[in-house]
Parts: sequence; structure tokens; C-alpha cells
Amino acid sequence: MSELFSPDYLLVIGNRVLRLCLIVIGSGLAMRFFKLIVDRFFMPKADGKHFYLEEKRARTLSSLLKSIVQYMVYFVTLVMILQEFQIDTTSIIAGAGVIGLAIGFGAQTLVKDVITGFFIILEDQYSVGDYVENGDMAGTVEDVGFRITKLRGTNGVLHIIPNGAITKVTNYTRGHMQAVVNVPVAYDADINQVQLLLAEACESVKELPQIIEAPKLLGIVDFRPGELVMRIVVKTLPMEQGGVEAAIRQKIKTLFDAAAIPLPAAAQVPGVKLAENRGGKS
Amino acid sequence: MSELFSPDYLLVIGNRVLRLCLIVIGSGLAMRFFKLIVDRFFMPKADGKHFYLEEKRARTLSSLLKSIVQYMVYFVTLVMILQEFQIDTTSIIAGAGVIGLAIGFGAQTLVKDVITGFFIILEDQYSVGDYVENGDMAGTVEDVGFRITKLRGTNGVLHIIPNGAITKVTNYTRGHMQAVVNVPVAYDADINQVQLLLAEACESVKELPQIIEAPKLLGIVDFRPGELVMRIVVKTLPMEQGGVEAAIRQKIKTLFDAAAIPLPAAAQVPGVKLAENRGGKS
Amino acid sequence: MSELFSPDYLLVIGNRVLRLCLIVIGSGLAMRFFKLIVDRFFMPKADGKHFYLEEKRARTLSSLLKSIVQYMVYFVTLVMILQEFQIDTTSIIAGAGVIGLAIGFGAQTLVKDVITGFFIILEDQYSVGDYVENGDMAGTVEDVGFRITKLRGTNGVLHIIPNGAITKVTNYTRGHMQAVVNVPVAYDADINQVQLLLAEACESVKELPQIIEAPKLLGIVDFRPGELVMRIVVKTLPMEQGGVEAAIRQKIKTLFDAAAIPLPAAAQVPGVKLAENRGGKS
Amino acid sequence: MSELFSPDYLLVIGNRVLRLCLIVIGSGLAMRFFKLIVDRFFMPKADGKHFYLEEKRARTLSSLLKSIVQYMVYFVTLVMILQEFQIDTTSIIAGAGVIGLAIGFGAQTLVKDVITGFFIILEDQYSVGDYVENGDMAGTVEDVGFRITKLRGTNGVLHIIPNGAITKVTNYTRGHMQAVVNVPVAYDADINQVQLLLAEACESVKELPQIIEAPKLLGIVDFRPGELVMRIVVKTLPMEQGGVEAAIRQKIKTLFDAAAIPLPAAAQVPGVKLAENRGGKS
Amino acid sequence: MSELFSPDYLLVIGNRVLRLCLIVIGSGLAMRFFKLIVDRFFMPKADGKHFYLEEKRARTLSSLLKSIVQYMVYFVTLVMILQEFQIDTTSIIAGAGVIGLAIGFGAQTLVKDVITGFFIILEDQYSVGDYVENGDMAGTVEDVGFRITKLRGTNGVLHIIPNGAITKVTNYTRGHMQAVVNVPVAYDADINQVQLLLAEACESVKELPQIIEAPKLLGIVDFRPGELVMRIVVKTLPMEQGGVEAAIRQKIKTLFDAAAIPLPAAAQVPGVKLAENRGGKS
Amino acid sequence: MSELFSPDYLLVIGNRVLRLCLIVIGSGLAMRFFKLIVDRFFMPKADGKHFYLEEKRARTLSSLLKSIVQYMVYFVTLVMILQEFQIDTTSIIAGAGVIGLAIGFGAQTLVKDVITGFFIILEDQYSVGDYVENGDMAGTVEDVGFRITKLRGTNGVLHIIPNGAITKVTNYTRGHMQAVVNVPVAYDADINQVQLLLAEACESVKELPQIIEAPKLLGIVDFRPGELVMRIVVKTLPMEQGGVEAAIRQKIKTLFDAAAIPLPAAAQVPGVKLAENRGGKS
Amino acid sequence: MSELFSPDYLLVIGNRVLRLCLIVIGSGLAMRFFKLIVDRFFMPKADGKHFYLEEKRARTLSSLLKSIVQYMVYFVTLVMILQEFQIDTTSIIAGAGVIGLAIGFGAQTLVKDVITGFFIILEDQYSVGDYVENGDMAGTVEDVGFRITKLRGTNGVLHIIPNGAITKVTNYTRGHMQAVVNVPVAYDADINQVQLLLAEACESVKELPQIIEAPKLLGIVDFRPGELVMRIVVKTLPMEQGGVEAAIRQKIKTLFDAAAIPLPAAAQVPGVKLAENRGGKS
Repeated sequence: MSELFSPDYLLVIGNRVLRLCLIVIGSGLAMRFFKLIVDRFFMPKADGKHFYLEEKRARTLSSLLKSIVQYMVYFVTLVMILQEFQIDTTSIIAGAGVIGLAIGFGAQTLVKDVITGFFIILEDQYSVGDYVENGDMAGTVEDVGFRITKLRGTNGVLHIIPNGAITKVTNYTRGHMQAVVNVPVAYDADINQVQLLLAEACESVKELPQIIEAPKLLGIVDFRPGELVMRIVVKTLPMEQGGVEAAIRQKIKTLFDAAAIPLPAAAQVPGVKLAENRGGKS
Repeated sequence: MSELFSPDYLLVIGNRVLRLCLIVIGSGLAMRFFKLIVDRFFMPKADGKHFYLEEKRARTLSSLLKSIVQYMVYFVTLVMILQEFQIDTTSIIAGAGVIGLAIGFGAQTLVKDVITGFFIILEDQYSVGDYVENGDMAGTVEDVGFRITKLRGTNGVLHIIPNGAITKVTNYTRGHMQAVVNVPVAYDADINQVQLLLAEACESVKELPQIIEAPKLLGIVDFRPGELVMRIVVKTLPMEQGGVEAAIRQKIKTLFDAAAIPLPAAAQVPGVKLAENRGGKS
Repeated sequence: MSELFSPDYLLVIGNRVLRLCLIVIGSGLAMRFFKLIVDRFFMPKADGKHFYLEEKRARTLSSLLKSIVQYMVYFVTLVMILQEFQIDTTSIIAGAGVIGLAIGFGAQTLVKDVITGFFIILEDQYSVGDYVENGDMAGTVEDVGFRITKLRGTNGVLHIIPNGAITKVTNYTRGHMQAVVNVPVAYDADINQVQLLLAEACESVKELPQIIEAPKLLGIVDFRPGELVMRIVVKTLPMEQGGVEAAIRQKIKTLFDAAAIPLPAAAQVPGVKLAENRGGKS
Repeated sequence: MSELFSPDYLLVIGNRVLRLCLIVIGSGLAMRFFKLIVDRFFMPKADGKHFYLEEKRARTLSSLLKSIVQYMVYFVTLVMILQEFQIDTTSIIAGAGVIGLAIGFGAQTLVKDVITGFFIILEDQYSVGDYVENGDMAGTVEDVGFRITKLRGTNGVLHIIPNGAITKVTNYTRGHMQAVVNVPVAYDADINQVQLLLAEACESVKELPQIIEAPKLLGIVDFRPGELVMRIVVKTLPMEQGGVEAAIRQKIKTLFDAAAIPLPAAAQVPGVKLAENRGGKS
Repeated sequence: MSELFSPDYLLVIGNRVLRLCLIVIGSGLAMRFFKLIVDRFFMPKADGKHFYLEEKRARTLSSLLKSIVQYMVYFVTLVMILQEFQIDTTSIIAGAGVIGLAIGFGAQTLVKDVITGFFIILEDQYSVGDYVENGDMAGTVEDVGFRITKLRGTNGVLHIIPNGAITKVTNYTRGHMQAVVNVPVAYDADINQVQLLLAEACESVKELPQIIEAPKLLGIVDFRPGELVMRIVVKTLPMEQGGVEAAIRQKIKTLFDAAAIPLPAAAQVPGVKLAENRGGKS
Repeated sequence: MSELFSPDYLLVIGNRVLRLCLIVIGSGLAMRFFKLIVDRFFMPKADGKHFYLEEKRARTLSSLLKSIVQYMVYFVTLVMILQEFQIDTTSIIAGAGVIGLAIGFGAQTLVKDVITGFFIILEDQYSVGDYVENGDMAGTVEDVGFRITKLRGTNGVLHIIPNGAITKVTNYTRGHMQAVVNVPVAYDADINQVQLLLAEACESVKELPQIIEAPKLLGIVDFRPGELVMRIVVKTLPMEQGGVEAAIRQKIKTLFDAAAIPLPAAAQVPGVKLAENRGGKS
Repeated sequence: MSELFSPDYLLVIGNRVLRLCLIVIGSGLAMRFFKLIVDRFFMPKADGKHFYLEEKRARTLSSLLKSIVQYMVYFVTLVMILQEFQIDTTSIIAGAGVIGLAIGFGAQTLVKDVITGFFIILEDQYSVGDYVENGDMAGTVEDVGFRITKLRGTNGVLHIIPNGAITKVTNYTRGHMQAVVNVPVAYDADINQVQLLLAEACESVKELPQIIEAPKLLGIVDFRPGELVMRIVVKTLPMEQGGVEAAIRQKIKTLFDAAAIPLPAAAQVPGVKLAENRGGKS
């Protein structure tokens, strides 16, 4: 009797058929499972504040993810069936690996965006309505999404920044701001009189509701060719520093005009630069 | 009797022949399948707005992809046949791996372009007709493709930017813009009169159809050597801010001329710089 | 008798059932164990000063980590069960590997943040209350977290910097500071008289409590067109240098006015630049 | 009788000899095949517009590629023969892997150049004769090759740029250009008269054949210390904007001279800067 | 008799039990060994000058390292036990590999810091007390640690720089320094008289103890609009160049005043720039 | 009779001895082969223009490569012998892999240099004697080597640039150059007269042998505060543009002096900048 | 009789014991061998000019390398012994791989330094005593080591640069230098007289021993507001250009004074910039 029909051989064949069925059924289950996860992830929850997407976009993204999952499951199933027939599939996997490498590298930015976005929300670095600055872009936060942050600039533009590109960020609405007024004064002005007038200007704005602490006169902060620079600082409510500064400057101008204090006439390149110095150090 | 012709040995040979046939047939099917996918991907759909390519380009790209697929299937088939003969193919795969590494790394930019492009469209960061700015390039969006975005600059040039290079983007057509007019005034001008004239200028443009909110006078925003700087801001319709600013400046010039307000005469480097400051903070 | 029911075969089946049970039980234990570790890591300790998170955030982060662990354990268990049935899972693992690659690369910044944060605390590079500078951001440290550092700028803004982005850091509150006053003097001034007056100014502030060492006059540190620059340096308590500099400048101004020392009138671009030179070298 | 001469053992030996022959013959065929592909790739086609190389260079490159292929086939063949003798070749492959890693990384730039070059041609980003700008290099495209693009600068130089280094590119010859003329006017000029003269200048050039649309006067676009800036814009044919601007400036100069309009005399740093502003936004 | 109790089977079981014991014992030994190494590495040696840590920090770091080692040994032991039961652990290792990848990449900066730190000390690039400059940070070296270098700036701040960020470094205390004095002279001055006076100034400081070589007058090093620039150089002891320069400038000022040499009056932007030119080349 | 001396066992031992001999002999042959290749590569050929090294350097490099090859062959041979004794060498190869990784990454720059160098020569981007510019370095090409390019700057210095660092390159000697002369004219000059004089200047140099095409007057290319700018361009032979420009300027100066055309007196920062503008676009 | 004491089993045990001994002995030999190599590498040779280290440093480095080798050999031996007992060590190797990855990446800079250093010496890019410039550092080469290059700046500082950071390098002592003198002349000067005087100045210095070729007058190289710029160039011996330039300027000044040539009085920003232009192109 030939060995081909021995119970042993039948057993092997039966085993293999069984396993092929198992693989196919398993693939089907896996696909359904992954699609369920995708659906659940994008299903708008009643209270879902974070990572919420408009319904249309959620449907686009979820259908895209589903077809990616589908192709990956097809591929894995195919390879597993081939392996059941003892066909070496190293070369197929290696071929897919090159594509996988390119995709893995190309997608790392996406992963980084999502991770950073998660921590921005977790650590409450900023939330909708805050005025923040990131690199050369600044504005009021309109949206903190799972991949991007949207800022509305003061001139009305909409800055769209991927979360992964937000490393260092400056939040202007976490605590009191400090208004800074630099007052250039010509060298031939009477320094004592100037100080009295500045003190008077400080006094006059002290009662403004946006001011937290009485203004402080820091004295002469720089000798510049042709002029001295004096500085007044004052703590204000967030985003009110601009108005307070304008009010102080207005008062100073009126007082100086009245007292005929000479103001510097010469042009100077670093004039504005100084306004950007960090107040407490110079 | 020799073992060479034993049923066992025949079985092994038969098995192998069968498997070789399977591999060759499978390769043929795979190739047809991949080509179908490629064709379907590039087939212009009736309503295909996104990722649409001109027919000629689609044909070039699809034939290129097909021949790449063809060579990859040839290679994998060859390796699988060799493995059927128990020939170790590690070295062949390793050799192909070096090429694959270079290609995988070299292609990651392409993958990143496509992924970013997908999210630009999904998140509607900008669409055709918007005026956007990316780094040192700005213009009206002419096309958002699967790999590149085309911007038409205001001077007529066509900027072509790969989507992957678009990280931070500023959209000028999502909401109201803010026109900003900086008015330098000499120190010896009468500040109260200047403010009255500026208020009058604000009043005169209030009724323009492009203006959303009445203009606001922010007061003195900087002391610069030789001049004060005052600022007017006003909310306008998108892309109308330039015209509104010109109208305000024209009015101011006329009023100042009439009132003989002295304008600063000295040259100053930071003159224009200030115009670039973010309005709401200084 | 068929081999199917031989004790040998039963043994194999029994063995496999046993091992499957083992794998499932082991997975359950592993999951519980990992969750315990996560809980313990985020459990606020009584004395836990470092790496402390607000309770709500700790709960969010720990539940996220737990569900990540859960999915990873599910995946590993599934693969191990498949392998028990001798199903080759290389392709599944390879598929997961592409995702793993993207995640691994995308998460490296997170790892770097935590490692750097650990060393910042270990080496005591700065602690809460110090005034530090990192790149273009400076302020008083408000918080050194496990991923980010928060600085409060002198103008009240809150800078949020990931620890990994803090490479070079400058701490202003580790030892005495040095106040630097540059005094521009016109070429036609009497240099000896100027030096006497500056010495007198130095003398007059010597007794200030913020001063550690008597002020030092460095002499002429630069010839600039139209002016000489002289420099006074003085060691002060941390963060008091600004006040000391203002006091010295005030005194100099008063003395120069009294002695009618001519000050330079011409505008000069590098005027402020020099103040940024490193004192001890020029 | 010894087992050494058993039919079994002879079979093994015969088998091995057969396989060695197969490997050697296969290597020979592979090498011939690869050389054929290389030849075909570099064979100048009658209509081959893209990726065409001069014959001499094609020969150099193809002979280089052939000898690289030759050495790789030698290496793979050698390793396969060793493996036939059951000699473990992991260490040889690992050794070659280090070299392969360096080559793979070093060659990724080359791959990126070719991929980008392909898309430049496919998407028709620019073609020979266009005037394009890439970073700090600009010129007329002389050649779009498979690895590099050649630009002829307006001053005659030849810029050679690898395609991979061309990310953002600006094409000046895809549509109408816009000529921009900034007219600085002294503050004491009569603004109404100036506007009339500028309108007259616009009118005078309206009929030029290079002009697509009648010139537009944008009004006062900036207050600068000592001067106003007015701006005229006009759509022109590609590359004709320089001539149109010169014609407008010439006309303005003549009209202003006739009307004795005062022009600003003071030097100003940002003078030219403004000319670089994006027209439509300020 | 059943095979279950055959000596063969007992042997296998005995063998496995033995090996499990071996693994557990080996793990325990390995853990103790690693902890010993960690302890030894951080144990303060009597003469340990380099890589010395304060005791408290050493204890923190060593306990952290120990618990990392502990978890790694646990993990490896677990995997080895599973493998003893022929359970395929590829998926577990692959899972750990993703985490390992992120950690490996995140930690490479740490490794680079330590390697660079080692070479800084080995090559004696700088040691405590030297005045060094790295990028935009300069100061006296206070500490060269195994991961960071601390510099005390001349204004008293403490710069903390990871060793890996120190690529190019400039050491000011390895050999003689050169004091450089640029003397701007108006075009209408008598050049011969100026040279005589400068030679006299050189002569007068020649005997200063900080001077290594007699000062040298380099002649006219630049024609600048409105002024000539002459230069004096002199070799000094390290860190004494500032004082020597001041002394020379003082002498020149006195001599020029006495001789009524006209000094340039006009402001000039590149005035200070020139002082930064490399002396020997212009 | 013991099995130790059975023919089977002897066969195994004989086989192993044979294979060990084969491995050792093969290693020897491989080493000789690699050394031959190295020798051949560095052997100066009679007509070897490219990649030619001085004999001494060739000898140094070839002996270094030989000893690297030697150590690699030793290592591989050792591992293969160990594997012959069924000793698992994974850990040895892994250990060597870490070193290989560092070397592979460290050497990728070298590989990139050689690849880029090959294409520079193949594509004839520049050859010895050309005047090229790469980033901030420019000069006449003295040598294009297999790793570096040497440029002789116009001031005599020798720039040494690795080929891999040469991405964008500008060649000044491939075709005609364009001389550009910017002529600043004061606003109060008679514009018609100026144009006549410039036309005369153009005419006067038209016959110079270095000029390819008659000079062209582009008209007024910019209004700058205090001055107009006019421009003359002319095509010249390579590297002759400097002389032609000087000749034109000389002629203009003479003509303007004769006609008493006022030249602008005020200092202006962007004066030279404009000379760098791209001629054809403004 | 039990199988435990069958000759077969004894053989296996004997074999294993033998192999363990082999592994241990082999490890010992390997360690001794590696230490020998390390010693030989660092042993100061009589004629060893390159890569020579001070004895103390060599000893430090060699003892460090030896203990690294020691730990690696220990680790490999341990793993091999475990593998002899059929214990799967994949997890151990994977664990070590994470550390290896971090070290491999962290050490790649070191490898790059050594490779670049080798080629700097091989290609003789610069040697001790040359004056070279790399990025913003310049000086006389004091030492070319196996990892770093030391430059002595003209002001006496010591620049320490890792070889890997030296990509583009400029050598000032390979051939003749060119002295460049820019002469600004006021517009109202007589251009012919100026040229005669400059020619006379050229003539007067022609005989200086540092001059290789007679000085050349390039004519008018730029029109700048308020001044013409003329230029003289002359070939000199290396490092003598500064002295030659000073001599020419001195002569010009004397001649101009004698002839009362007006020199430009106005300040100009780009004044010094021009001196940095590349002579031969403008």
C-alpha cells in the first residue's frame, strides 16, 4: 500500500486545510476588529472636546484608515497562506520592507505632531483664547487639534502650525503682563526735572483699572549718543499692556511739552532695539 | 531497487514541480493585480477633484509605476524559485537591501509630501483662491496637488512648494483682516491737535464698505528719537486692508497739510521695522 | 490502532493546551503588573517634589499609558497564540514593525526631553526661582517638570520650553553679577577731568548694600568716530545689577552736567552693540 | 561495503555538483541580463528628450555601472557557493553590510535627486527657457537633467543645482508679471498734485504693447520719516516688467521735474527694503 | 509501560528544571554584578579628580541606574524562561525593540556628551580657570564634568553647556594674547605727525609688566569715508590685553589732545566692526 | 566496538578538517585578491587624468586599505572557523556590528564625497581653470579630486572643499558674462541730458574686443531717497566684465564731469546692495 | 543498563566540556591579542610624526580602550557559554543592542573626526605653520591631531576644532596672496589726476621685496553715493599682504595730501563691506 494514503499523510493534509481556514477566518475577524476600532476612534462623542473632528473629515479619515488596514490585512494573510505551503516569503517581506521604511520615516513627523499635541493639552501649555507666540508667529489660539494648532494673528490672519513644530512657546495670558515705556531724553535736559515729571506721569496712571501694581521708574538705563534712556515699568492685566503704555506715553508727552523738556532729535539705529531688551537685566 | 525511483522521491519531485508552477502563476496574478490597482488609482474619476492629474502625466506616472512593480515582482519570483531549490538567497536579498535602503531613505521626502498634502486638504488649511504665506513665499493658491502646492505671487510669479516643506502656514483669507497705519509725528507737534485730526481721519473712512468695525486710535505706541509714533487700526474684509490703509493715509496727509502739523524729517533705520511689530502687544 | 489516539499524540495536544493556558494567564498577569507599575509611577507621593503632576493630569496620562500597554499585550498574546499553532507570524511582526518604526522615531524627542530633564534636576542646572536664559527666551524659572521647563519673562509672559530643547543655558543667579556702565564721551572733552568725575561717581555708589566689591574704572575701551567710550564695572548681588547701573548713570549725569562735560551728539549704529561686548576682553 | 559509495551518498554529491553548476550558470546569465538593462537604459533613443546624456558620458556611466554590477554578482555568487558547502556566511554578509550601510546612506542624496528630477519634469514645474528662482540662485533654465538643473543667470553665470536641492521654486514665466514702482515723495509736496501727475504717468504708458492691464495707482503705502511712499502697479507680459518700470519711472521723473515736485533728500536705510514688500498686503 | 515515565522523558524534565534554576541563579548573580559595577563607578575615590559627582547626586544617579538594570534583568530573565518552554518570544522582543529604538535614539545625545567630555579632558582642551569661548558663550571654566561644562561669564552669569554641544572652542589662556588698538584719524590730519605720536604712545607703554613684546604700529589699515584707520598691536600676558589697550588709548588721547590732531566726527556703522577683523590679514 | 571509530564518525571528522583547510586557504586567496584590487586601483595609469593621486599618498592610502582588509579577513575567517565547531557567534557579530554601525555612519560623508565627485566630473560641472563659486567661497578651480575640490581665490588663498559639500555651484566661465554698471544720479540732474551722456558712454566702449554685444541702457531702475539709479548692461567675454565695467565708469565720470552733472552726496545704506540685484528683473 | 551512561551520552558531555574549555581559552587569547593591538597602536614610534600623543594621554586612552575591550570580551564569552547550554540569548543580545545603538550613534562623530583627520593629513590640506580659516575661526595651525586641529589666532587665542567640523577650509599659505587697496574718492576730484597719483603710488612700492608682480590699478570699481571707489591689487608673498597694503595706503595718503585731492566726508554703511568683495568680479 502506498504511503500517500496512510492516515499520517491524511492527517497532515487535514491539518493544513484546517489551518488555512483558521488563517482566512482570523483575517476576516482582524479586519472587522480594526475597522471597529477606527470607527470608535472617530465616532463623535457627546462630550468629546479634544481631538474632535468635523463629521465629514472624520468620515474621510476613517474610510482612508480602513482601506489602509484592509490592504495590510490582505498582504499579511497572503504571506501567511504562502508560508503554510512552506514557500519562503523572506523576499516578499523584504520588498515590502523598503516601502515600509520610506513610509515609516515619512510618517514620523505625523507621529511627533500627535505626541506633542497630546502633551500640549495634557500640560495645558495653552488653550483656546490664549495669546501665544511661537517663533515668528503669534496670535490668539483658535483651535488645538490632534495634529495642528490654529492661531489668529492680531492683524486677522490665521496661522496654522503643526504641533510637532511647536517646541518653545510663549503664553501671554498666564499671569500679569508688564508694560515697558522707554523715554529717550536729550543730554542737555535737566535730569532731576525729568525724573519729577516721569514720577508725576507714573502717579497719574496709577488708578487705571488695568494696572495691578503702581508704575516704577527704573532710572537711566542707557547712555546713547545724543540721548539718555529712562524706563518706566508697570504690571498690568493680560493683554492690557499696550493701552497702559499708550496712556503713560501720552501723559509724558503732555508733561514734557508743558515743561519744555528737549527730546532727542538725532536718528539712531538702535532706538527700537532697546525696547526689546529684557527689562530686568540692563 | 534504487531509492531514486521510490514513490517517496517521486512525491518530493512532484511536490516541487507543483510549487514552482504555483509560484510562477502567483507572480503573474500579483503583477496583473498591482497593475490594476495602479490603473484604478490614476483613472480620472468624473468627480475626482483632489489628486487629479492631467491625463498625459497620469499615463507617464502609471506606466513608470507599472514597470517598477514589474521588476520587483520579477525579482521576488526569482528569489522564491531559487529558494525552492534550497539555494540560500540571503546574500541576494542583502545586496538588494543596500539598494532598498538608499531608495527608502531617498523616497521618504516623497512620502512626507503626500501625507502632509492629504492633511492640508483634510483639515482644509487652505484651498484654491486663498491668499497664503509660507516662509518667504506668499500668494494666491492656484492648485493643491498630491505632492505640491502652487501659489501665484502678487507680482505674478508662480511659487511651487512641495507639501512636505509647508509646515507653518499663514492664511490671509480666513476671517477679517486688520489694517494698521503708523503715523510718525515730530516731537514739536501739538499732541492734542494731532489726536483730534487722527480721530477726524478715522471718522471720515468709517463708512467705507470694506470696513467691518470703526477705526480705532491706539495712541502713542513708541517714542523714537526725533518723532512719536501713533497708530490707527481697523478691521476690514479680507485682502482689502491695503486699500483702506491708503485711504486713511491720504486723509491724514490732507488734514495734516491743512493744519500744518510738522512731520519728522530725520532718517531712521527702524522706521519700517515698527510697521512689522505685532499690533496688540506694544 | 490508529496513531491519532496514541499516548504520544495526546501528550502533544495536552502540552499545547497547557501552554495556551499559560500564555493567556501570563498575559493577564503581565497586564496587571504593567498597570501596577504605571499606577505606582503616577501615584503622588507625600514628599514627591520632582516629576509631580497634578492629579487630574496624572490620571489622564496613566489611563492613556494603561490602554497602550493593554493593546500591546493583546498584540503580543495574539502573536504568541498563533505561533503556538506553528503559524509563521513574521509578516504580522513586520507589519507592526513599520508602525513601530514611525512611533519609535516620533517618540525619540519625548525620550530626549525626559533624559535631559532628569539631568537638569540631578546636576541642579537651575531650580525654581532662578533667572535663566535659553536661546532667545529668558525669565524666572517657575517649574521644572519631567518634560518641560516654564520660565516667567520679566514682562510677565510664560515661556514653555521642552527640556530637550534646552542645551546651552545661562543661569543669572549663581554667584555675583557684574554691572557694566559704558560712558560715551565726546573727543573734545578733557579726558583727565572725565576720569576724575567717573572715579567720584564710583566712590559715591561704593556703599550701596547691593554692591559686593568697589566699582572699577576700566579706562578707554574704544575709539569710536565722534566719541570715546569709557567703562565702569562693579560686582553686585544677583539681579541687582540693573539698579546699580541706574544709580551710577544718574550720578555720572549729575556730575557731568555740573562740570559741563560735552556728550557725543552724533548718532551711531554700534552704540548699543558695545554694551553687549564681553567686558573682560576688549 | 563502506557507506561512502552508497547510492545515497553519490546522489548527494551529484546533487551538489548540479547545483553548483546551476549557480555559476545563473550568475553568468544574471550578469548578462543586468548589463543588457544598463545598455538599454543609456542607449540614446531617437525621441529621447528626457534623461538624455551625451554619448561619451553615457558610455562612462554605463561602464561604471556594469563593473559595479559585475563585482556585486561575483560577491553574491561566491557567498552562494560557500553556502552550498554549508559554510556559515553570516560574518561575510555582516562585513559587507557595514560597507553597504555607508554606501546606502551616502547614495540617498543621489536617489532623492533622481526622484525629485522625475517629478519636476512630470509636474512640469519648469522647462527649458523658463526664468526660475531657487533660493539665492535665479536664471533661465538651460537644462533639466536626471540629476541636475542648469540655470543661466542674467549676468551670464551658469548655476548648477542638484534636483534634490530644489524644494521651493519660483517660476517667473507662468502667466503675467506685475511691475511695481515705488515713488518716494517729500512731506512738503502737494499730495493732490502728485496724484494727478502719477495718474498722468500711468495714462502715458497705458498703450505699451507689453502691458496687459492699465496701470493702477495704489495711493500712499507708507509714511516714512521725511517722505511718503506712493505705489503704481501694472500687469505686464513675462520678463517685460523691468522695461515697463523704467518707462514709468522715466515719465514720472520728467513730470515731477516739470512740476517742481520736491523729492526726499535724506538717506534712509529701509529705502530699498520696501520695494521688496509684497505689493498686495501693505 | 507508558513512555511518560521512561528514563528519557525524566531526563528531559530534569534537564529543563536544572536549566531554569541556572537561569534564575544566573540572573541574580548578573544583577548583583551590575550593581557592584554601578557602585564602584560612582564611589568617590580619594584622588578622583575627573568625573567626580557630589555624594548626593552620585547616590541618586546610582540608584536610578540600579533600578534600570533591575528591570532589564527581570525582562531578560522572563524572556529566557519563556524560551525554555519553547514559547516563541519574537513578538515580545519586537515590542521591547520599539521602546528600545526610541530610548536608543533619545540617549545618543547623552553618549555623545560623555564621549566628547572624555576627549576634552584627555586632550586638555581647557581646564578649570581657563577663559574659553564657545559659540555665543564665553567665560572662565568653573567645572568640566562628565556631561557638562560650566563657564562663569565676565558679567557673573553661569553658562552651562553640554559637552556634546562644544565642537569648536576657543581658549584665551594658552599662550600670549595680542592687544589691538584701532585709531581712527580724520583725513585732514597730518599723517606723519600722527605716526610719530602713535610711535611715542607705543614707546610709553613698552615697559608695562603685562607686555611681552614691544608694541608694533601696523600703519594705515583702512580708508574709510571720513577717516583713516591706523592700528597698533602688542603681545601681552593672557587676559591682560584689555588693560594694555586702555593704557595705550589713554596715552594716544593725551598726545592727540596736546597736538590737536583732528578726530573723525561723522557717525559710521562699520566703526566697531573693524575691531573684529583678524589683525594679520587686512 | 565503540562508535567513536566507526567509518561514519571518521567521515565527519575528515569532512570538518577538509572544510577548515578550505576556509583558511580561501581566506588567504581572498586577502591576496583584495590587495590586488587595491593595488590596481591606486596604480598610476599612463593616461589616468582623474582620481590621480601623488605616488606617496597613493602608497599611504593603499597600505592603509590593505591593513583594513587584512583585519576584516582575519575577523571573518575566525568567525567562520568558530562556526565550523558549531559555536554560536551571533554575539561576536553583534559586538562587531556596534563598531560597524559607528563606522558606517561616520563614513557616509566620505561615500557622499566620492559619489558627488564622480558626477561633478561626469557632468562636467566645472573643470580645472574655470572660475566657480560655491556658497561663500569662489575661485579658479585648481584641482578636482576624488574627494575634494581646490579653488584658488582671487586674493590668492586656496579654498579646499569636500565634493559632498558642493551642492549648488555657480560657474562663471560657461558662456558670456554680463557687466552691470549702476549709475546713481541726483534728483536735480537733467534726466534727458544724463541719458544722452550715458548713451555716449555706451557708444564709446562698443568697440572694445572683450565686448560681445553693444551695451544697453536699461533706464531708471530705482527711485532712492536723494538719487535715481540708472543701469547699463553689456555682454562680455568670461572674466572680462570687471575691466569693461571700469572702462564704462571711467568714461561716465569724465562725461559727467565735463557736463557738470550733480552726483548724489548723501550716504545711503543700500547703495551697494543694489549692485547685487538680479539685473533682468527690477 | 540506563542510557545515561551510554558511550553516546558521554561523548556529548565530553564534547561540551571540551568546547567550553575552548571558548574560555579563546576568550583569553582574544583579550590578550586586542590588548597587544591597543598597545602597539599607542606605542610612540621613533619616527611617528602623525597621530602622536603625549605619553600620559596615550596611557590613559590605551587603558580605557583595554577595559572596554575587556568588558566586551567578557560579555561575548558569557553569551557564548550560555548558548553552549542551548539557552536562547536573543533577549540578552537585544538588550545589549539598545545600548549598542546609542553608543554607535553617539560615537559616529568620533569616527567622522578620525576619518576626516586622516584625509586632511593624506591630502596635505594644511600642515603645522600654515595660516588657515575655517568658518569664523582663523589662525596659524599649531597641531593636526587624530581628532582635533589647533589654530593659534592672530590675537593669540587657541582655537580647537574637531576635524569632522572642518569641511570647507581656506589655506592662506599655498601660493601668492593678493593685496587689495580700495581708495574712496569724492566725486568732485579730478579723476585723471587721481589716476596719475595712484599710478605713482603703485610705482613707488614696486620694488618692495614682498611683492611678486607690479601693482595693478583696476580703475573705478564702484559708484557709491558721495564717492567713487578705485582699486589697486598686487601679488605678494604669503602673509605679507597686510604690510604691502599699509605701505600703499601710506603713499597714497601722502600723494593725495600733497595734491589736495578731496576725500569723501560722508559716513557710509557699506564702506568696509566692499573691501570684502571678491576682487576679480566686480
